[in-house]
Amino acid sequence: MSPAAERALKEATLPKGDAFVAAQLAGIMAAKQTESLIPLAHTLPLSSGDVRFEWAGAGTLRVEAEARTVARTGVELEALVAASIAALTIYDMTKAVEKDIAIESIRLLEKSGGKSGHWVRK
Amino acid sequence: MSPAAERALKEATLPKGDAFVAAQLAGIMAAKQTESLIPLAHTLPLSSGDVRFEWAGAGTLRVEAEARTVARTGVELEALVAASIAALTIYDMTKAVEKDIAIESIRLLEKSGGKSGHWVRK
Amino acid sequence: MSPAAERALKEATLPKGDAFVAAQLAGIMAAKQTESLIPLAHTLPLSSGDVRFEWAGAGTLRVEAEARTVARTGVELEALVAASIAALTIYDMTKAVEKDIAIESIRLLEKSGGKSGHWVRK
Amino acid sequence: MSPAAERALKEATLPKGDAFVAAQLAGIMAAKQTESLIPLAHTLPLSSGDVRFEWAGAGTLRVEAEARTVARTGVELEALVAASIAALTIYDMTKAVEKDIAIESIRLLEKSGGKSGHWVRK
Amino acid sequence: MSPAAERALKEATLPKGDAFVAAQLAGIMAAKQTESLIPLAHTLPLSSGDVRFEWAGAGTLRVEAEARTVARTGVELEALVAASIAALTIYDMTKAVEKDIAIESIRLLEKSGGKSGHWVRK
Amino acid sequence: MSPAAERALKEATLPKGDAFVAAQLAGIMAAKQTESLIPLAHTLPLSSGDVRFEWAGAGTLRVEAEARTVARTGVELEALVAASIAALTIYDMTKAVEKDIAIESIRLLEKSGGKSGHWVRK
Repeated sequence: MSPAAERALKEATLPKGDAFVAAQLAGIMAAKQTESLIPLAHTLPLSSGDVRFEWAGAGTLRVEAEARTVARTGVELEALVAASIAALTIYDMTKAVEKDIAIESIRLLEKSGGKSGHWVRK
Repeated sequence: MSPAAERALKEATLPKGDAFVAAQLAGIMAAKQTESLIPLAHTLPLSSGDVRFEWAGAGTLRVEAEARTVARTGVELEALVAASIAALTIYDMTKAVEKDIAIESIRLLEKSGGKSGHWVRK
Repeated sequence: MSPAAERALKEATLPKGDAFVAAQLAGIMAAKQTESLIPLAHTLPLSSGDVRFEWAGAGTLRVEAEARTVARTGVELEALVAASIAALTIYDMTKAVEKDIAIESIRLLEKSGGKSGHWVRK
Repeated sequence: MSPAAERALKEATLPKGDAFVAAQLAGIMAAKQTESLIPLAHTLPLSSGDVRFEWAGAGTLRVEAEARTVARTGVELEALVAASIAALTIYDMTKAVEKDIAIESIRLLEKSGGKSGHWVRK
Repeated sequence: MSPAAERALKEATLPKGDAFVAAQLAGIMAAKQTESLIPLAHTLPLSSGDVRFEWAGAGTLRVEAEARTVARTGVELEALVAASIAALTIYDMTKAVEKDIAIESIRLLEKSGGKSGHWVRK
Repeated sequence: MSPAAERALKEATLPKGDAFVAAQLAGIMAAKQTESLIPLAHTLPLSSGDVRFEWAGAGTLRVEAEARTVARTGVELEALVAASIAALTIYDMTKAVEKDIAIESIRLLEKSGGKSGHWVRK
């Protein structure tokens, strides 16, 4: 994103309020709706979900989401949905300042548990 | 994505069926839910929404979404939500073949109408 | 439906309460969700919706739904969704008494307004 | 349905795309929403859901839905909701060609598991 | 509420129908949606939910809701959501007669089970 | 609420984060879902919605919600739903500290526009 959008986010002076808290909640709430967003996703009870933000260089905000469950199917989609909707909420709240923001590289970083065992992105 | 995932998508031999039609519908349906996904998004009636797919080089699938409305607020979030959920549905349907797929560069390409006029990404 | 289920409905002595009021409300609420149930249905504001019930012979309950809108697209799907969900709610509330109930002939009876004019089923 | 609507469905030349895939997905997604459609239905996790189509004579399309769960309550409503919404989606996608299509005989065919044992419609 | 609103409720002569059944169902349905209404509420399967009404003096309607679950987290929010939405539905159905109705004292009365044991409001 | 809960809210040291921002967003998002929560509420497009908090004496938090629309029906239910869900979210986030919090006096304060004109609670 541009320096202007970054400054606005950091100073939390956006017309629509604190974008980070809104984005975190939107991500967590969307993760709980994964089954109704992704056609063949299974209904599963989230044990916990979280979304964290970190500035990773000038103009680059890193969004990291985590989801846990005790169900018998994987929960990676829930985490990816949380990250995507959190990022889109940041976009929504900064688009008055800058339309050009791009969401880069939504991807799975790590998965553990289940029959496929522990997997870490190389 | 990997050649194996690309082949699976092209041959529509995925265990979960034709991923493109599912992803298109999931994107369109999610666009209609934008107001309940993005906390401060406005309720607006979509006049039309569409999601298209195109192979843009080896291992690269391009997802393009479009949204139209006659309401007084912008509709770019609806298009970005449609593209994101469509891409995540593709991910969901190929993750049995490959966990590594990344969704790159979700961004606004063009916007017209409204008080901000015609805008095209450079 | 069987005489036992009909009697139960008429006496409103079902374990789950008055099936008709529940079915009417379920139908009206589902009609408002048509856009999220039918993939390509348009978002439209219902001006009014109603579901009515009438005994049409032994073991036969007639369910009639009506939907009105001032939008530019048709509203027949909303009425058909209301009738279907109302009938399924009746089924849900009588299935402890009888599993055999069938929902026959969900169909459009009449449509007026819009560019296609007045249409009545023959 | 009329020969014109049947032909349109078979040739998948409908303006709105492949009606069967859309109807299958709509049915599966609606089954997952049963608890919010049918007032007193229980929240239960679907293990799997499916909707299949078969031409059963001239002008007659058979829609068959299946739902499985490991919960302690029955899952027949989920299957009936899937079949109903799938059929209404077919209706939505052919109504430009024919308004007269009727959905006949939504009913339970078979149920197994649970305390009531195996039940097959006569 | 005023004597006029109370009379209307008691005689069930409201333009919108029997307010008690509607409010009971609305409360139960909302309880099932608690996870999507309260941002950090957990997904949990309701074993049962109920809403009851009782006249507790002139102009005072008592709304009591109950929720049960076998999940590992508490279910008090589900009961409070049910009571709140049931009361708001009563409000919606009497507001044509009286705008002044107030919903007083939404609070937890009793909770049992779970690690915090049996709790009763003093 | 008790001094302990008030202190926790004021210091924003709750385990679940900043309760006010979460409650504000939950209220605004719930207002947009009013039509699916209140059985006979109309579908209407919110022009704007807001929820504000103010300490109104020891142990008393005042929650004020506002909703605006350009539709032909009233929007008071949307504001009351926003206030109720915002208050329940505060409850959810402080219940680890205190179960005793009561939500007192949810009521309409002022309404303007529409055929009933300007109305202010006495």
